[in-house]
Amino acid sequence: MEKKFVYADNTATTALSDAAFDAMMPYFKTLYGNASSIHSLGYESKKAVEESRKKVAAAINARVNEIYFTSGGSESDNWALCSSLLMRGAKGKHLIISAIEHSAVFRTAETLKTRGYEVTCLPVDEFGKVSPQQLKNAIRDDTALISIMMANNEIGTIQPIKELCQIARERRVPFHTDAVQTVGHIPVDVRDLGVDMLSLSAHKFRGPKGVGALYVRTGFALPPLIIGGGQEKNKRSGTENVPGIVGMATALTEAVTNMADNTPKITAMRDRIIAAVMQIDGASLTGDPLDRLPGIASFLFSGLESKAMVAALSQAGICASSGSACSSGSTELTRALSGIAKIDANAPTEKVGNPKYGALRLSLNECNTAADVDAILRELPLVIRELHIRKPSPLF
Amino acid sequence: MEKKFVYADNTATTALSDAAFDAMMPYFKTLYGNASSIHSLGYESKKAVEESRKKVAAAINARVNEIYFTSGGSESDNWALCSSLLMRGAKGKHLIISAIEHSAVFRTAETLKTRGYEVTCLPVDEFGKVSPQQLKNAIRDDTALISIMMANNEIGTIQPIKELCQIARERRVPFHTDAVQTVGHIPVDVRDLGVDMLSLSAHKFRGPKGVGALYVRTGFALPPLIIGGGQEKNKRSGTENVPGIVGMATALTEAVTNMADNTPKITAMRDRIIAAVMQIDGASLTGDPLDRLPGIASFLFSGLESKAMVAALSQAGICASSGSACSSGSTELTRALSGIAKIDANAPTEKVGNPKYGALRLSLNECNTAADVDAILRELPLVIRELHIRKPSPLF
Repeated sequence: MEKKFVYADNTATTALSDAAFDAMMPYFKTLYGNASSIHSLGYESKKAVEESRKKVAAAINARVNEIYFTSGGSESDNWALCSSLLMRGAKGKHLIISAIEHSAVFRTAETLKTRGYEVTCLPVDEFGKVSPQQLKNAIRDDTALISIMMANNEIGTIQPIKELCQIARERRVPFHTDAVQTVGHIPVDVRDLGVDMLSLSAHKFRGPKGVGALYVRTGFALPPLIIGGGQEKNKRSGTENVPGIVGMATALTEAVTNMADNTPKITAMRDRIIAAVMQIDGASLTGDPLDRLPGIASFLFSGLESKAMVAALSQAGICASSGSACSSGSTELTRALSGIAKIDANAPTEKVGNPKYGALRLSLNECNTAADVDAILRELPLVIRELHIRKPSPLF
Repeated sequence: MEKKFVYADNTATTALSDAAFDAMMPYFKTLYGNASSIHSLGYESKKAVEESRKKVAAAINARVNEIYFTSGGSESDNWALCSSLLMRGAKGKHLIISAIEHSAVFRTAETLKTRGYEVTCLPVDEFGKVSPQQLKNAIRDDTALISIMMANNEIGTIQPIKELCQIARERRVPFHTDAVQTVGHIPVDVRDLGVDMLSLSAHKFRGPKGVGALYVRTGFALPPLIIGGGQEKNKRSGTENVPGIVGMATALTEAVTNMADNTPKITAMRDRIIAAVMQIDGASLTGDPLDRLPGIASFLFSGLESKAMVAALSQAGICASSGSACSSGSTELTRALSGIAKIDANAPTEKVGNPKYGALRLSLNECNTAADVDAILRELPLVIRELHIRKPSPLF
């Protein structure tokens, strides 16, 4: 399949970078040893894993021994939540999250409720921001963990994690952040933020799928989620995914190295899209206008269905999303969008298939070009117009 | 690094097959869509994942919807154990395993003990076999799960899973088997065996590291271990590792297709090693002489340390193992070996670094050649002799 399309769904996943691809290749058929084996081939794998750990640690200003490799963001999030609560036992049955967490946090929290935990879900404002004051008010003596994402995957809003962490620290409550959308895209410094745990996922920054990491601050004695052979200092068992880990570290180093060059270009493309789309009747921007990820242009369109827009854009050669790949099949407004105050108050989804607003997310990275933006801005208004004409009946 | 060594550690991990490598390649940089995205590129990934699911299902005679992709054998084992017990709740607090389970089962069971569950650990005989009668006696009214591995990773013994399953079925107790060492190596038919759950791992049969699967029988309502975006029909969240899944399915299809051709060749190499090594003074075979995996030649050497043998063989260009990659660093006899009755009774490990017996595992697959066996049989007696000479003091 030739690249005859415009890929504007980089928040869902990315193309593997050339450097990551090249770095991974030897570890499939030549240096294929088990990193736990003590022979020469095992040693080569071990060395590669430990070099990778150094790179990942450096990229987020962690210590080397604070990085644990996992199978991705969802596992990291599940691990952080479930094991933190397990660790606290009966002394801490309370968890605080935000209303717009990724499902790997939100639905895990929902499940924890059925296991005897209490969950406070902080609301967000119309820009998707959590209020530090509301966090302060929500903390209880039995709060075992606060988990608030660093930036939202659907609307791109970046949270004031450092400020929120400070509040947690004052009350001695551990703080986890799902940084899956920020690592490799904006500067992430675990020491500066003050987090105890931070989840990241390789395929969001042009690393491979199926690999991620959890940063766990030294001294934070998180029990394992996956138990077995004792890999990752007994914290995460399972034969090390050597090519995946090498690919992740390479992609992340590359992303961090090029961030200063890439960000202004990506931001300019994003802003060009936002400026143009806001001229379309019925379009509104979602997320924070300023504190937003460089690559995410996210909108609501009055009277249109997300799924229909995404499908029509795909027909026109543009890969976009309704907001979250995980919920692509659904025609209801996603949690993040219904979590935004103004939407929630003024325009609840009436019923499936008949939304007042449909979401559309166009997400860019350094692989995108001005020509991609040209194509988006040429096709999108046509698609919107066409869908309005095709609507079976005037709904509004 | 040129292949200048003999790789005889295929039970720890394998080289990726050419077919699997080739099949994976397009999904890194060209068909890189998120399988949950509803645009054209997402659809290509979805299609690849579902085609792979069909192949994995066919390889073990499962239905397509009974295959759930995971990050590997350890995750599959943890999922099977933890979620089965969770599902049964207060009605089933009892778990049965064998004494020689892989750590992903054994240590998970140990951890479950600390969470209020009771674990019965069935002993094995001198060949590493579980007794059906002992299983029958161990089942209680509150037994929530039986987990017995299909074949042991250190000594190669194959358990009578079908017979054990029949006993479980009569008492309506769910049965899980860790088939990480058998899938792709000996015929595995989930219907014929009668298991409710079965774990498999790609990198054991020349698929990539970091990907595996759990077979879950239709009607067995296992809750998820990793919760989030709802992938894998809500059973295992996380963005699908498309290249990994494609690689696993390709390698498994290949392994199953070529099994009838490969097995006699691998078995003949294994038996040549066993026959020759048994001529070495102080060497004894571990595991069942007949019901054993085609590729595993495993021994105990009187008066020698595992680690020293593996290191010396590595120096001589031969990659071997003490028994389990996961415990390579340890100089104590592993659980499987101390689980074998005759060893346990007659020759307990005296202290670390001063063993009466050291284990050595040479594990082969279809990549090995007669020349590899020649090299092993040339170097191994030299290594053994040298280590005996070098011993600081005559211990026995």
